[in-house]
Amino acid sequence: MQAEIITIGDEILIGQIVDTNSAFLGKELNKIGVSIYQITSIQDDKAHILKALKEAEENADIIIVTGGLGPTKDDITKHTLCEFFNDTLVENKEVLKNVEELFEKYIGTPISDINRQQALVPTKADVLRNKFGTAPGMWIEQNGKVFVSLPGVPYEMKALITDEVIPRLRKKFKFPFIKHKTLLTYGLGESAIADRIEAWEDALPKYIKLAYLPSLGRVRLRLSAIDMDRKKVETEIEKQVNLLLPQIEDVFVGYEEDHSIEAIIGMQLTEKGKTLSIAESCTGGRIAQAFTANAGASKYFKGSVVSYATASKTDILKIPEKTITENSVVSKEVAEAMANNVRELFDTDYAISTTGNAGPSKGDSDAEVGTVWIAVATEAEVFSEVFNFSNQREKVIMKATTKAFEMLQKIISKN
Amino acid sequence: MQAEIITIGDEILIGQIVDTNSAFLGKELNKIGVSIYQITSIQDDKAHILKALKEAEENADIIIVTGGLGPTKDDITKHTLCEFFNDTLVENKEVLKNVEELFEKYIGTPISDINRQQALVPTKADVLRNKFGTAPGMWIEQNGKVFVSLPGVPYEMKALITDEVIPRLRKKFKFPFIKHKTLLTYGLGESAIADRIEAWEDALPKYIKLAYLPSLGRVRLRLSAIDMDRKKVETEIEKQVNLLLPQIEDVFVGYEEDHSIEAIIGMQLTEKGKTLSIAESCTGGRIAQAFTANAGASKYFKGSVVSYATASKTDILKIPEKTITENSVVSKEVAEAMANNVRELFDTDYAISTTGNAGPSKGDSDAEVGTVWIAVATEAEVFSEVFNFSNQREKVIMKATTKAFEMLQKIISKN
Repeated sequence: MQAEIITIGDEILIGQIVDTNSAFLGKELNKIGVSIYQITSIQDDKAHILKALKEAEENADIIIVTGGLGPTKDDITKHTLCEFFNDTLVENKEVLKNVEELFEKYIGTPISDINRQQALVPTKADVLRNKFGTAPGMWIEQNGKVFVSLPGVPYEMKALITDEVIPRLRKKFKFPFIKHKTLLTYGLGESAIADRIEAWEDALPKYIKLAYLPSLGRVRLRLSAIDMDRKKVETEIEKQVNLLLPQIEDVFVGYEEDHSIEAIIGMQLTEKGKTLSIAESCTGGRIAQAFTANAGASKYFKGSVVSYATASKTDILKIPEKTITENSVVSKEVAEAMANNVRELFDTDYAISTTGNAGPSKGDSDAEVGTVWIAVATEAEVFSEVFNFSNQREKVIMKATTKAFEMLQKIISKN
Repeated sequence: MQAEIITIGDEILIGQIVDTNSAFLGKELNKIGVSIYQITSIQDDKAHILKALKEAEENADIIIVTGGLGPTKDDITKHTLCEFFNDTLVENKEVLKNVEELFEKYIGTPISDINRQQALVPTKADVLRNKFGTAPGMWIEQNGKVFVSLPGVPYEMKALITDEVIPRLRKKFKFPFIKHKTLLTYGLGESAIADRIEAWEDALPKYIKLAYLPSLGRVRLRLSAIDMDRKKVETEIEKQVNLLLPQIEDVFVGYEEDHSIEAIIGMQLTEKGKTLSIAESCTGGRIAQAFTANAGASKYFKGSVVSYATASKTDILKIPEKTITENSVVSKEVAEAMANNVRELFDTDYAISTTGNAGPSKGDSDAEVGTVWIAVATEAEVFSEVFNFSNQREKVIMKATTKAFEMLQKIISKN
């Protein structure tokens, strides 16, 4: 069973936005056993949309189209769908009611003629109700294939996929079982790992694929299996992971499933009833933001201080000025004091701190661009490490954030 | 002149990573006058790669392929290129030297047989030197069309595009001039704006396109023009913007070129020599993170407190317990006290605060999910406003962040 995702919108092609919709769609469809054959991003152009629909129909069983459903002149998806399915638009009462209700609740004005056009739907389409916006989702079947057209606004699309599209697909098709298992490793290059595990890789059964995903200091190894027999898939993946693990023991740090490492840490802390606080300098709030993006963060995360200016390290985190002048603001001593003091300030079990220079120019210290000290404090001890990440600001912030998660997780797992 | 971008890798299709490479490529190519015809993401599958190359060759003049150039078995792009161009791989001395040097510098071991394979290159390809990794970029011309194959690792790909591909494309082709101008508006819906400016939109010259880009509380209006005559494009865009502005004066907040609103605020503060601090509750660090993602943030951003647990609002931000118990933690009084107190704590000219409930469940207050109070404090005054954003966590955090930027910018522009 294969799907194609078609995302429509000039803003994707000119790089004005990053297409996060496709990643979400790929993940959600994959979870229920649908392989993604292709993701195609195209302009708001009728001929091109028609061509993409035709090709997708040849290659895939499920075609998901996002974008081009707004009320303005540059949105042409609905008219193009009518041409493709040889259909016409009619006003749908349910959709009209939804549009009117949304306007009453959030805008406070009656709807205009333009908004009313949002209620026009091809006669062959089942309407999927959009709780968060005026553009309805549409489900059209033709020759045993399913076409779904969704708005491009990410949270509208996501709700429609979760609440409407996935349940309908499960009802209509019988899907094979797809399982991915991703092992996170730190500290060894892609080719060095490949060298080590070559014999194991060559002996993998045909229906299991291995992928190497290198990124900033880590390599993820992803095993993917697909088969109608769920039991077989699960047993074989388990068996292969058990054969692999002893060969990469020294660099293996954990599994990555649906959860990011920060979400896993959050679950571990919640389970143990432990709490966390953070003092960030060069990472500027990114670590706190990553934790708080997940629901339930308030169970373990008490708060953080972004002490960007050096003065805020002394004023708020109460680091003695002497510690800073004697050691530099980017130093082991300052990182450890930040972690210890923020832990006491928020009265938490664990604390992380970062101090470094993300660039592009030198800041309040002589530290080279890319130098970052990271510390983790518990009630009993404080650990710290220094890194030199690179000379590119975004990369330094990202790597420092990832490394802080890794250090924290090691200490939580140990305690 | 049209380009197609082909990104290869199962990790994109199963949603394990978001394809940021395509957005970067789209933006950079567009800047020099290349329109992107299509972005196609496919699996590491030989037949499918061949099919995509063939179709791209029919539709585009420039074909950029990323991914599948790693040293491991799942990487098959190079062999597939050989099949497509009826070519063979030979060891390239320059690439071998680059691989050896990178290993000596960063890994400290001699290269293995697997690494040595990175030096194999199709005979028809010009090698583009990859300063940051072992996989070389490759440039192949056939029937007047250009094929470029690049590694999928973002910073390797980016450096190759900037240093090698763009200069070579400029040398080989004469490109038309493309200009985008994006106007940022806040506070009016897409359809209400469309209603207002309909006459202006209908009168736009054929070579200028208008796009509406709505997202969480704002609508961006993008004008795009393409023509060989640079002067004509620039003059006409300027003229059209001047006709448009009076019609949207009340909701227009600025232009978005390469800068986000937070970057624009940063520039305004730096120019005025003013400083900023932040107290975040429900936004959990996202506001601070957005400012500090930009180089030069230390010039105006002194720091922030994420006061996630209610206790941290009293302990660190010194908000009287009475203020919280009498008004609830999500209230005008608490938001204003947070902004005032964090401004004093960090001794800054401006401060922003957020307190609300991002959901999915109710927190330490009775506030409905989605309710957020935002306050902006200056030395003289404090302003606050309450919003009900929605019931979806990510959306609440995003909207509150965007709204905080908007409120702050209005006040900075006034002072």
